[in-house]
Amino acid sequence: MASPLRVTVWGEYRHEKKNPRVAAHYPDGMHATIAAFLRRDAANVVRTATLDEPDHGLGGDVLDTTDVLVWWGHMAHGEVSDEIVARAQARVLEGMGLIVLHSGHYSKLFKALLGTTCSLKWRESTDKERLWNIAPAHPITQGIGEYFEIPAEEMYGEPFGIPEPDELLFISWFTGGEVFRSGATWRRGNGRIFYFRPGHETYPTYHHPEVQRVIQNAVAWARPTVRIPDACPNSPALEPLPPDPESAERPTTGHR
Amino acid sequence: MASPLRVTVWGEYRHEKKNPRVAAHYPDGMHATIAAFLRRDAANVVRTATLDEPDHGLGGDVLDTTDVLVWWGHMAHGEVSDEIVARAQARVLEGMGLIVLHSGHYSKLFKALLGTTCSLKWRESTDKERLWNIAPAHPITQGIGEYFEIPAEEMYGEPFGIPEPDELLFISWFTGGEVFRSGATWRRGNGRIFYFRPGHETYPTYHHPEVQRVIQNAVAWARPTVRIPDACPNSPALEPLPPDPESAERPTTGHR
Amino acid sequence: MASPLRVTVWGEYRHEKKNPRVAAHYPDGMHATIAAFLRRDAANVVRTATLDEPDHGLGGDVLDTTDVLVWWGHMAHGEVSDEIVARAQARVLEGMGLIVLHSGHYSKLFKALLGTTCSLKWRESTDKERLWNIAPAHPITQGIGEYFEIPAEEMYGEPFGIPEPDELLFISWFTGGEVFRSGATWRRGNGRIFYFRPGHETYPTYHHPEVQRVIQNAVAWARPTVRIPDACPNSPALEPLPPDPESAERPTTGHR
Amino acid sequence: MASPLRVTVWGEYRHEKKNPRVAAHYPDGMHATIAAFLRRDAANVVRTATLDEPDHGLGGDVLDTTDVLVWWGHMAHGEVSDEIVARAQARVLEGMGLIVLHSGHYSKLFKALLGTTCSLKWRESTDKERLWNIAPAHPITQGIGEYFEIPAEEMYGEPFGIPEPDELLFISWFTGGEVFRSGATWRRGNGRIFYFRPGHETYPTYHHPEVQRVIQNAVAWARPTVRIPDACPNSPALEPLPPDPESAERPTTGHR
Repeated sequence: MASPLRVTVWGEYRHEKKNPRVAAHYPDGMHATIAAFLRRDAANVVRTATLDEPDHGLGGDVLDTTDVLVWWGHMAHGEVSDEIVARAQARVLEGMGLIVLHSGHYSKLFKALLGTTCSLKWRESTDKERLWNIAPAHPITQGIGEYFEIPAEEMYGEPFGIPEPDELLFISWFTGGEVFRSGATWRRGNGRIFYFRPGHETYPTYHHPEVQRVIQNAVAWARPTVRIPDACPNSPALEPLPPDPESAERPTTGHR
Repeated sequence: MASPLRVTVWGEYRHEKKNPRVAAHYPDGMHATIAAFLRRDAANVVRTATLDEPDHGLGGDVLDTTDVLVWWGHMAHGEVSDEIVARAQARVLEGMGLIVLHSGHYSKLFKALLGTTCSLKWRESTDKERLWNIAPAHPITQGIGEYFEIPAEEMYGEPFGIPEPDELLFISWFTGGEVFRSGATWRRGNGRIFYFRPGHETYPTYHHPEVQRVIQNAVAWARPTVRIPDACPNSPALEPLPPDPESAERPTTGHR
Repeated sequence: MASPLRVTVWGEYRHEKKNPRVAAHYPDGMHATIAAFLRRDAANVVRTATLDEPDHGLGGDVLDTTDVLVWWGHMAHGEVSDEIVARAQARVLEGMGLIVLHSGHYSKLFKALLGTTCSLKWRESTDKERLWNIAPAHPITQGIGEYFEIPAEEMYGEPFGIPEPDELLFISWFTGGEVFRSGATWRRGNGRIFYFRPGHETYPTYHHPEVQRVIQNAVAWARPTVRIPDACPNSPALEPLPPDPESAERPTTGHR
Repeated sequence: MASPLRVTVWGEYRHEKKNPRVAAHYPDGMHATIAAFLRRDAANVVRTATLDEPDHGLGGDVLDTTDVLVWWGHMAHGEVSDEIVARAQARVLEGMGLIVLHSGHYSKLFKALLGTTCSLKWRESTDKERLWNIAPAHPITQGIGEYFEIPAEEMYGEPFGIPEPDELLFISWFTGGEVFRSGATWRRGNGRIFYFRPGHETYPTYHHPEVQRVIQNAVAWARPTVRIPDACPNSPALEPLPPDPESAERPTTGHR
């Protein structure tokens, strides 16, 4: 059996306290709902962390002992400290998995890892979303049929300001006439990143069985294989080098 | 005939003032040598900018009026202001081309755009570098044969901490036994990025004809097609939406 | 000014002779309509070729003197000779550009170059198609806005059995609820390939201005940079090799 | 525990019978050596098949009951029947994994799946090969350090006529001055393909521990997730379509 997978679900946890419509769907916060369905897999050891905890709940050794980080944020991206973002980014590059949900497309962490605007079109209205599974062999789409529908969701539309994904898994159709790359993966350093579009706070999206299944699959898929700290080593030759006639007089210049 | 291409060659311009070996190769600075061979193409209008100028020579409307930015830095990456980096990154995402040379792999700008460590192995010794052209149909490799050699260069070795390139153009062989992805492209937003490995300051690399040809080709290849400012618009539906029974009571939540 | 671009537009030219609805849109054949709008660019020298000509109009030196081949076929893919397909494939790998239109997704040539099923969902009905431009900086999308619409078209739906494109340019939205990767590029050998979805024979799609613009752009984009015949050479060493104690007795084995 | 993985190792098995040097390394054939080290993983159920068996050992239900196919061929690619190649290609697109070894780069099966020439440079001499692991987080490179060496191998050099890999895992350095993309993956349809360069018949390469480890890892990585037969279905609308004023008179045209 696979060793335990240490998952940390990070939630902004602000809308839930302010907006009764959100609280109705997620009385303990969106992070609690997400953590609960991830705990159904016995391989997962799941913690949660939220914005208003000290260090956003990601201080101490939390990031060091996290295998996969799940991220949902929306209205307060700017309040996340740059230092925590830098540490989380470094952990992904070392090997930690990262699952970014919905409005997390505009989180500092996702933007830092992708390097692009991550902008998109949006509309809060009465659209239905239909997610087409275009990669039925991918581990993240297992158990999902040809498509699934979410009766009401915020619309996100193209162009989406992301680098070309390594793998495009879902494309959404919206009633109002738009399309969106709703599920996509990127390898960055030694870590695996999955972005998954659904999850606007005013809808019960994280209670949707296919949405849960995709996130469960993604967490398993993002399991680290290695943990390799960053290094930029001066490296001796492995084969004989010719002598350097100027070497006696050459000044040493450090690489950086 | 193509319209003029406004190129800005950015050089750190520190080694040249401190190290006589560097100054011997580049008496007016590496940026001056690079600018000179780019000016041979009548389509290019070439400026230079250096670290110790106000705003690193990139203030005012310089970035706004640059089509392609060429970047060489090494010992003073940390002295480049975050604000200038953010503006240059935004310009690439709008459509500006970017050519990053050699030790520029560790520049703030390159790292911000790629999101990864950009780390590598290195050695200053007596290696010969042979660059194999693995994409002979690419615009950047035109005029380059199957390979070319640089008699002495700093070694850079794998693993190189970059996202999988969109196109891998050159792989280097080094005498000491290493290999390196020496020429690679990425699209980021509306801009085109090319990284080209050769160019350690203590060697006369930028006087090498094939090196010059690659950089000339790259500058032409990186010409912007568009300039699109970042936006994340609320977007009305293009098709009829169903009525929302709850709309009367739904609180408005701004997207960001 | 750029040198002339030798374009060959290949059309199956069967539906037009059998179906009055098709003939009404394309009295001289779909290939003639496509050739006509490509001739508007003075850089293009445009020929046509059709299935029922000897060698499908692609014999003699036609392929040898073609820079970019445009392909539309549908009901008679199986009648295209394997030999012509093999020669066209070899020409793409040498450097010829290839633009595959609509039902050409199931042509022998496209399938041979991509290696996959190229299958999809389809429906002939009353769908509107809206093509979203997700790569506004790409040469092929220049002059196209955020999206364009085709009032009536055959539906093609995902999953589309293609390798992950190098660049995904268009995603279609259909009234009936489907999405499709409608414009995509691949580099294969030294040639560039663009697949473009619209163009069912019973609709006047190739009279649509944006459709014409995309195909015009694609033909210019696919211009060859090189022509490199296939070779698999035995290649002498460029660096000294150690002596081989067994070489005297080693039997020679040809590579293939 | 994972369910059994049904592996079929296909070997051409000609050199071993003709060349005593090859037979000395592989008295029962290269396929037997490869099968033996794959059997060390208890999850694998391993069969072998060879060219001169009826249907090359791949008839009946062998392909249907194969999860991962390993392929080594060299001097007799042309003798493999087109029908068997077509069935094996279809199986990969349905979901079967495929590991192509060394001179298998020129097999009909690999070329059919990739669509390109798969040509390269080569030399049989006294080169040492050093394979650099450029993707240390990939499942296929687990247990492999930064690089490993093969004391004597045939040289393969760039350019290698393949589509840009989805993931580039190894780059080789050769004594004689060449480089090569020695380990690369592609997704094609629902199947996973890995090409691994080492393995010239006159060297004991498949007795090398790191070579064995890579192939063991690759077989595990290529395990199918699904088996989806090819289909191109006429698909009814999921959303209401507008009426078609012309539908009464429209002739029906089958999609293919």
